[in-house]
Amino acid sequence: MTTNPSPQIWLYDTTLRDGTQREGLSVSIEDKLRIAHKLDQLGIPFIEGGWPGANPKDGQFFHHLQDQPLQQAEIVAFCSTRRPHAHAATEPMLQSIVAAGTRWVTIFGKSWDLHVTAGLKTSLEENLAMIRDTIEYLHTQGKRVIYDAEHWFDGYKNNRNYALQTLETAWLSGAEWLVLCDTNGGTLPHEVSQIVKDVSCHLSAVREKNSLIHDQGQNQIPQIGIHTHNDSEMAVANAIAAVMAGARMVQGTINGYGERCGNANLCSLIPNLQLKLGYSCIGEHQLNQLTEASHFISEVVNLAPDEHAPFVGRSAFAHKGGIHVSAVERNPLTYEHIQPEQVGNRRRIVISEQAGLSNVLSKARSFGIELDKEQPQAKFILKRLKELESAGYQFEAAEASFILLVYEALGLRQQFFEVQGFHVHCDLVEGKETTNSLATIKVAVNGKNILEAAEGNGPVAALDAALRKALVNFYPQLATFELTDYKVRILNGHTGTAAKTRVLVESGNGQQRWMTIAVSTNILEASYQAVVEGLEYGLLLYSQGKPILS
Amino acid sequence: MTTNPSPQIWLYDTTLRDGTQREGLSVSIEDKLRIAHKLDQLGIPFIEGGWPGANPKDGQFFHHLQDQPLQQAEIVAFCSTRRPHAHAATEPMLQSIVAAGTRWVTIFGKSWDLHVTAGLKTSLEENLAMIRDTIEYLHTQGKRVIYDAEHWFDGYKNNRNYALQTLETAWLSGAEWLVLCDTNGGTLPHEVSQIVKDVSCHLSAVREKNSLIHDQGQNQIPQIGIHTHNDSEMAVANAIAAVMAGARMVQGTINGYGERCGNANLCSLIPNLQLKLGYSCIGEHQLNQLTEASHFISEVVNLAPDEHAPFVGRSAFAHKGGIHVSAVERNPLTYEHIQPEQVGNRRRIVISEQAGLSNVLSKARSFGIELDKEQPQAKFILKRLKELESAGYQFEAAEASFILLVYEALGLRQQFFEVQGFHVHCDLVEGKETTNSLATIKVAVNGKNILEAAEGNGPVAALDAALRKALVNFYPQLATFELTDYKVRILNGHTGTAAKTRVLVESGNGQQRWMTIAVSTNILEASYQAVVEGLEYGLLLYSQGKPILS
Repeated sequence: MTTNPSPQIWLYDTTLRDGTQREGLSVSIEDKLRIAHKLDQLGIPFIEGGWPGANPKDGQFFHHLQDQPLQQAEIVAFCSTRRPHAHAATEPMLQSIVAAGTRWVTIFGKSWDLHVTAGLKTSLEENLAMIRDTIEYLHTQGKRVIYDAEHWFDGYKNNRNYALQTLETAWLSGAEWLVLCDTNGGTLPHEVSQIVKDVSCHLSAVREKNSLIHDQGQNQIPQIGIHTHNDSEMAVANAIAAVMAGARMVQGTINGYGERCGNANLCSLIPNLQLKLGYSCIGEHQLNQLTEASHFISEVVNLAPDEHAPFVGRSAFAHKGGIHVSAVERNPLTYEHIQPEQVGNRRRIVISEQAGLSNVLSKARSFGIELDKEQPQAKFILKRLKELESAGYQFEAAEASFILLVYEALGLRQQFFEVQGFHVHCDLVEGKETTNSLATIKVAVNGKNILEAAEGNGPVAALDAALRKALVNFYPQLATFELTDYKVRILNGHTGTAAKTRVLVESGNGQQRWMTIAVSTNILEASYQAVVEGLEYGLLLYSQGKPILS
Repeated sequence: MTTNPSPQIWLYDTTLRDGTQREGLSVSIEDKLRIAHKLDQLGIPFIEGGWPGANPKDGQFFHHLQDQPLQQAEIVAFCSTRRPHAHAATEPMLQSIVAAGTRWVTIFGKSWDLHVTAGLKTSLEENLAMIRDTIEYLHTQGKRVIYDAEHWFDGYKNNRNYALQTLETAWLSGAEWLVLCDTNGGTLPHEVSQIVKDVSCHLSAVREKNSLIHDQGQNQIPQIGIHTHNDSEMAVANAIAAVMAGARMVQGTINGYGERCGNANLCSLIPNLQLKLGYSCIGEHQLNQLTEASHFISEVVNLAPDEHAPFVGRSAFAHKGGIHVSAVERNPLTYEHIQPEQVGNRRRIVISEQAGLSNVLSKARSFGIELDKEQPQAKFILKRLKELESAGYQFEAAEASFILLVYEALGLRQQFFEVQGFHVHCDLVEGKETTNSLATIKVAVNGKNILEAAEGNGPVAALDAALRKALVNFYPQLATFELTDYKVRILNGHTGTAAKTRVLVESGNGQQRWMTIAVSTNILEASYQAVVEGLEYGLLLYSQGKPILS
């Protein structure tokens, strides 16, 4: 698509602002920086970084970003119009957005008369003045302005003329983009389509009316953008409807994160626009990274990826066994709406040994390990993977465990230590605040046996502590390791406490993080195995002097 | 909407067939029966029960259903057309669909020439004969037929004339519904709209051509249905586009369950069709049960409900604090696209004490406990709920724990037993298959102390076993209790093994099931608390002689 002459759609990502409104999602400044750089690599031209005036953390984010600037993308600061009867030049929120030091800013204002009179408790005229002053002031500060028309579609349905006046005002004050927002997410595609068309016609008419104005190029019609929410499960369809009606900017978030039911999902919008409608959004090589970017960001925000997500979900191109499979292999496009590789996903045909083997090889290759599919080790790895996967393991997330498995097959796995056994006990005495757990562990390092004991808040914490205590004298670097995340999932719920437990452990050493996995009917055993592999992989990193996972 | 003169849309639920294709979803016959009856209460007119020929479990389901017939809904059996060059009358799969004893059957056939020649490896003519023979044979068996045109939209794009011929054939053989299926989920709404319109025009033209045919009323055009998948995140939008283009049957699943990325989500389709477009689907009183039905079915299939699901998700009408809230309370419709109550959901305004209190009262009322909001106990319960919820508890699922809390506040909570402490220990010796866990527990019943010990596969199982052993002599009914489900979720992932753990335990006594919840930084303590409350609630049911939860 890079050489595609088709019309350009400007993607605008608001994962870092609207996306973080999702209940249960919280990000540190470091998380935000990692996400911003990932979006930059993905080729998103506009990345909304946050609302510096409303949130001090966002203010700091923009400062940190100046030390680690983006390659391509424009980072955008977000803010509302000035308050009623305030002066734009002295409005603190506008000071902070100027201080954010971005070239582009997004200003949102009210389109719905009811929100002006009932919400802001001010006059319709004052709201227009707020839009005008704010945008004109930011112009004097050398900013380029995107205008988000909040509650646009509801406002339009309630009072078309006033809603259109707010857009005109934003335009004539110098906004380069007018973004129509379906803030409550209640609009349906046929309405979006009709309203976007009406807006374009109206703006052309206004241009005629103002054909004498030539300063600041306002005789040029600003482009239209679309910002949708998923409350009617229409966010993606509405954005597509707007584009087909003439919108040229699409705002959304990775994985559709956002308040309530979320924002328009860029992971679905990009392939629909680019592969199905022939618009150009990002480079082909970037589209190939879409699945990886989706999973990376879900890991950073610590939410399990949606396995059934369109395009990027683990199940999106999964095929059941039987005749189906051979047919898929003969002619995939009769059973798949796109080629999974186009979005960096893969076909999953459980029974296809060949597919499995090539997956193993390509995965090993991605960690710099070259295997030949005729090598017996390659077949061994595949066999082992299949056993483990049918036992409930999943290596998509736990790549450190996968590498240890490959090293083992190749006879490269070092034995840094050998756990010979452990003993955990927990006491609860009614009335006491929490349970105390005590772990005793026996490990052998270079033929020397160490017996160590440690207490912890719960059995896993106690085991982890005892293990580190036992090993740190031999491997001082262990002191820098930390358990950064711990996830438990029950695989077969219906069998009660005898259910199988999958434990994912994330460990870190300050520079990098890695995930390990274990499955057992005993939650304690699964936890212990994942913790042990986490430590082993960390030691492997040091012993090799360089990180394996980039 | 019950008295609404607006056009009727016929809903067709395939949760029990297409829905169970979802990876990780498996249902027993009992589960299927519970779901079918719930869908019947919800007012879904057509419920697809399964494919009796392909799956023996489905065959049994139809037989069991004859003992527990549905009130309103038509249960539908699903099957493919006969195999190439076979005889419909002797085709085993068609025998089993007849044996299923339903009034209606759904037959799916190939629309895409490529699937006929490459997939079935037969001629285009033979495929038409397969459709004709199958439908005509089922007619002779007194069945009313719905025809699912598999891969319809891809087939139409590839070879319009042949695709249309397959529909004509189905119609003229006696199908009453022609359902256009976007089997690969790759079609976009504007295409669906155009193609559905073209099909209607074509069928009218065919009617003219066949105006002399009068037997079996085939001069009457069959109605068009739509069946969509979510691979482009367009399943709901595509179904709506089809309806606006004239389709009158909509096929989908509850919560959008289905293969790969799922089917069209009825929980979004129904409110969009009924509340936004004015079609009539189900009764108003049934629409009010939509959220409950969605959650009920997700519990039965043992998948966590999607908290961000449109209309029925826990976050769908959640409002953050601040000015926003007062505005919402003044005029909800300026911030909500529909009234949550219309779909049986509720607004969640975290900071609004009043809202909280009325929630407590209404919830207690739903369990037959009348509270007055001036009662100090009511305020106490609310305070306690807020403390527990901010600690990570969630009572939506764990109603048994909620009731115990209410009983406690009202001084009605009986003390069946008092756990005075426990001691669990687990040993792992390298090389042994699994870890052994031994639990010792001290309980007091009627002032008598009992010390018991039991082994188990993992610490929780051991604790559960010891507790039952200690209590069963006092409460023989405990023998009938079982732990039917056990779910663990980490609440704040980033703090590693010290993270808070939420444990949900489902217990049962053969007749009913109930859920209890506990949260702790110690997974073992949380599990133990939830297990103990599960037993206590079970005993409460017996002591009252009647179930509290209906």
